[in-house]
Amino acid sequence: MNAERLRIFDTTLRDGEQSPGCSMNLQEKLTLARQLERLGVDVIEAGFPIASDGDFDSVRAISKELENAIVCGLARTGKLDIERAGQAVESARKPRIHTFIATSDIHLEYKLRMSRAQVLEEVDRSVRQAKAFVDDVEFSAEDATRSDRDFLVEVFSAAVAAGASTLNVPDTVGYTTPKEYGALIAHLREHVEGAGGIFFSVHCHNDLGLAVANSLSAIRAGARQVECTVNGIGERAGNASLEEVVMALRVRSDQFEDIEIGINSEEIYPASRLLSSITGVQVQPNKAIVGDNAFAHEAGIHQDGVLKAAITYEIMTPESIGRASNELVLGKHSGRHAFHDRLLELGFKLEGDDFQRAFRRFKSLADAKKVIYNEDLEAIVSDSVQTIEDRYGFEALVLTCGSGQSPNARVQLQQDGKIIEREASGVGPVDAIFCAISELTGTSSELIQYQVHAVTAGLDAQGEVSVTIEEEGRRVIGNGVHEDVMVASAKAYVHALNKLEWHKKRRDVDAPRGI
Amino acid sequence: MNAERLRIFDTTLRDGEQSPGCSMNLQEKLTLARQLERLGVDVIEAGFPIASDGDFDSVRAISKELENAIVCGLARTGKLDIERAGQAVESARKPRIHTFIATSDIHLEYKLRMSRAQVLEEVDRSVRQAKAFVDDVEFSAEDATRSDRDFLVEVFSAAVAAGASTLNVPDTVGYTTPKEYGALIAHLREHVEGAGGIFFSVHCHNDLGLAVANSLSAIRAGARQVECTVNGIGERAGNASLEEVVMALRVRSDQFEDIEIGINSEEIYPASRLLSSITGVQVQPNKAIVGDNAFAHEAGIHQDGVLKAAITYEIMTPESIGRASNELVLGKHSGRHAFHDRLLELGFKLEGDDFQRAFRRFKSLADAKKVIYNEDLEAIVSDSVQTIEDRYGFEALVLTCGSGQSPNARVQLQQDGKIIEREASGVGPVDAIFCAISELTGTSSELIQYQVHAVTAGLDAQGEVSVTIEEEGRRVIGNGVHEDVMVASAKAYVHALNKLEWHKKRRDVDAPRGI
Repeated sequence: MNAERLRIFDTTLRDGEQSPGCSMNLQEKLTLARQLERLGVDVIEAGFPIASDGDFDSVRAISKELENAIVCGLARTGKLDIERAGQAVESARKPRIHTFIATSDIHLEYKLRMSRAQVLEEVDRSVRQAKAFVDDVEFSAEDATRSDRDFLVEVFSAAVAAGASTLNVPDTVGYTTPKEYGALIAHLREHVEGAGGIFFSVHCHNDLGLAVANSLSAIRAGARQVECTVNGIGERAGNASLEEVVMALRVRSDQFEDIEIGINSEEIYPASRLLSSITGVQVQPNKAIVGDNAFAHEAGIHQDGVLKAAITYEIMTPESIGRASNELVLGKHSGRHAFHDRLLELGFKLEGDDFQRAFRRFKSLADAKKVIYNEDLEAIVSDSVQTIEDRYGFEALVLTCGSGQSPNARVQLQQDGKIIEREASGVGPVDAIFCAISELTGTSSELIQYQVHAVTAGLDAQGEVSVTIEEEGRRVIGNGVHEDVMVASAKAYVHALNKLEWHKKRRDVDAPRGI
Repeated sequence: MNAERLRIFDTTLRDGEQSPGCSMNLQEKLTLARQLERLGVDVIEAGFPIASDGDFDSVRAISKELENAIVCGLARTGKLDIERAGQAVESARKPRIHTFIATSDIHLEYKLRMSRAQVLEEVDRSVRQAKAFVDDVEFSAEDATRSDRDFLVEVFSAAVAAGASTLNVPDTVGYTTPKEYGALIAHLREHVEGAGGIFFSVHCHNDLGLAVANSLSAIRAGARQVECTVNGIGERAGNASLEEVVMALRVRSDQFEDIEIGINSEEIYPASRLLSSITGVQVQPNKAIVGDNAFAHEAGIHQDGVLKAAITYEIMTPESIGRASNELVLGKHSGRHAFHDRLLELGFKLEGDDFQRAFRRFKSLADAKKVIYNEDLEAIVSDSVQTIEDRYGFEALVLTCGSGQSPNARVQLQQDGKIIEREASGVGPVDAIFCAISELTGTSSELIQYQVHAVTAGLDAQGEVSVTIEEEGRRVIGNGVHEDVMVASAKAYVHALNKLEWHKKRRDVDAPRGI
């Protein structure tokens, strides 16, 4: 049978990154992009270049770095948008510009304040402009699933006439159902002029829990590109989750015989873990494919009949998605070289000060903790890399607390090269630590969320703290890792403050958002 | 148009409770059952009575308590199973026995070691036995989606002949797809003998992320009962999530005009929060409907155009699922009576010592924290209720830690009426606390996971700690709440040890598991 290639289009770095608390800096984006390439995705949407200088730089850096994947920059139909996107991807081996405009009446009226005729003009103009920069142009009709069908056909026909080779049909608000969405794709394939050589693409949001099913239904109807994200992150309830789409296609390949995909599924779990460790956003235990409980025979109940259970209750193996977790990787006698090699295998390319910092953290952790797992290394690396471009540095903490006393924290920071120190008390120890730090730095942000999870099992596990803070509409998550969870808390708060400084320079709160 | 009632069958207390770390005691189950009744579910599967005395007692207590919902007990086809289920539900106003046996060749061979003829005999015998206890008998064919279709028709026909009025078609391993599953339901409705007056029911697992879509497809094909759980908890990747199924039916009622449901959707968010606060298992931020980020205009970015965004990007309102969160409910001058009334509104019926304990915690929290939210009350209640049947009690903690020193913890516990005390140091402060406690109690469990999240926003928020520990194949989660996160850690660990004690008395690790 002659199978057709289905393109997996990953938008973790763009739509995913737009979700609250998931913003990443250049170094973090590069690290994730490398893992996405190892995973074998066909297209990487690296960012929204017009949104900020930081976005632009990230798309540019990823364009230079990647070998195989198409690198894509998002742009509205405006001239400047397309220009910035074109500049950002120009050094990519396979560059793409992805331009979009809304097509539903509700968006035309409330958001764009444009007529249908104006929209059609914009589509033609922007796709032609993009074609001057790159051969490969994708066009998206935002809110396609709530758009008038005849108008949608007109819009897509105009995009094809102007040179677009991929037509994306976003379910922007997560409103559609599998049957309806499949029918829409079939209708478009039949009626859009020049649809013959075109890749139809789908981009589903998960507001009703149907994003994966909608994507699969569209594939059945002839879509040949799926836009998705690792762990399903993205605006609101997120996007179709890459791992669920891929494993549904693999496990039920009997239903998708005409499709082939280029994904190395063993890289799914490492990608999921890497994203969680970078953003501090964990998946819930019952998350399909990548959640802690997703596999029956990893559920920890090592009872009789686990192997029997595997065959009776499991439709895929943990190994098929690269879940050979809790593997011992390094001990306290491992040297610089072994550490460096192991990091490379995990996808981290650390150099200079970053590497030195990570290695020192590793040695001190190896003194405190008998066994160092992959998860520990991921945590160390994200902790070390994130100190780039930092204004504040954590130096030291002394804390006393307990049930009968008011918690007291003495914190030392480094700020612009000087050591500063302060003592504070609070309702709880975290309050005391954070008060000391915000008094030291003269900052006043609101604490939105505070979370801790242990990086691995065991009493000597490192604690990974994530702190969400908000200031003037800007929301960031800071992470800190340490075997002392209170030290990790201080580091996470300092990290969040550094991120806030960085975002103040980077992205306006009114920056445009995508499809 | 004459709409038919679709029954919402909640199995949070049975399939949900079987997932790692989600086990609940009687008091917790009762609290959740009351909320499920407020939510308006048609059927509550309250447990698996043969599995343990604890399960039996819970089903019995829920049967006595509920006014409107059908209360259902699960049973394999064995005589003793049916008998126990019958006894457990006997005082329910609307009792049901739900019996099941596997029908796929793979389960017949590896799990049951039975022939098809033997399975048919079991079905007939068990349904007739159940009918002697109750009028309302449901029969499930475990692993139906991997079963031979003709055999499945035979099995279901036998169940109908024996008196079953609901036939459930579980996708036990989460293997099917919407199209295939809809076709299966249609086939069964057409070919099962006597299918006319029967409720066809679906029970989908989410291993490929398709549980909700599969359920909706089956409804289109004529299924009139959906089995689901709050937050989608359940074995492995969990069950179809109740909130997603319900809101998909509501938001897309244009596609389900022939269906009506009896759910009060404003009770969805309270139910989700209650379950999380009881089990300590949080949903991920991008979880559809109930996740922190699920709604665009709650995303915390209070930028211009949020209301515009609401109409352009939201297909339902937060209010429709009861998300009017962060509501100030009580202050430090609120008395016993106001506290009691507010708890009742939240669904908690605390009495005697439980109430006194909760009220003391409330007063001490109100001293430390300016604003008390609903979430704080939920946390206080679950913290107070859980001290039932406890062997150990937390008394006091003094802790010192920091970056330059070895953490040191002094812990006081109460054990069988006596106060005991011990000091220990560790790699981190949590390690030090847990070492002190395990030395004091002479226990040796393995720490699997340690998590903290702040109950509300703000620096004076309470910390909710959940600790997963395992001993001899038994895994439990303990929770602790306190404004001092280290005190909360100690309480969570003590709670986990108490749960472990309780489970040792309660459920064998080889206890049967359901469909």
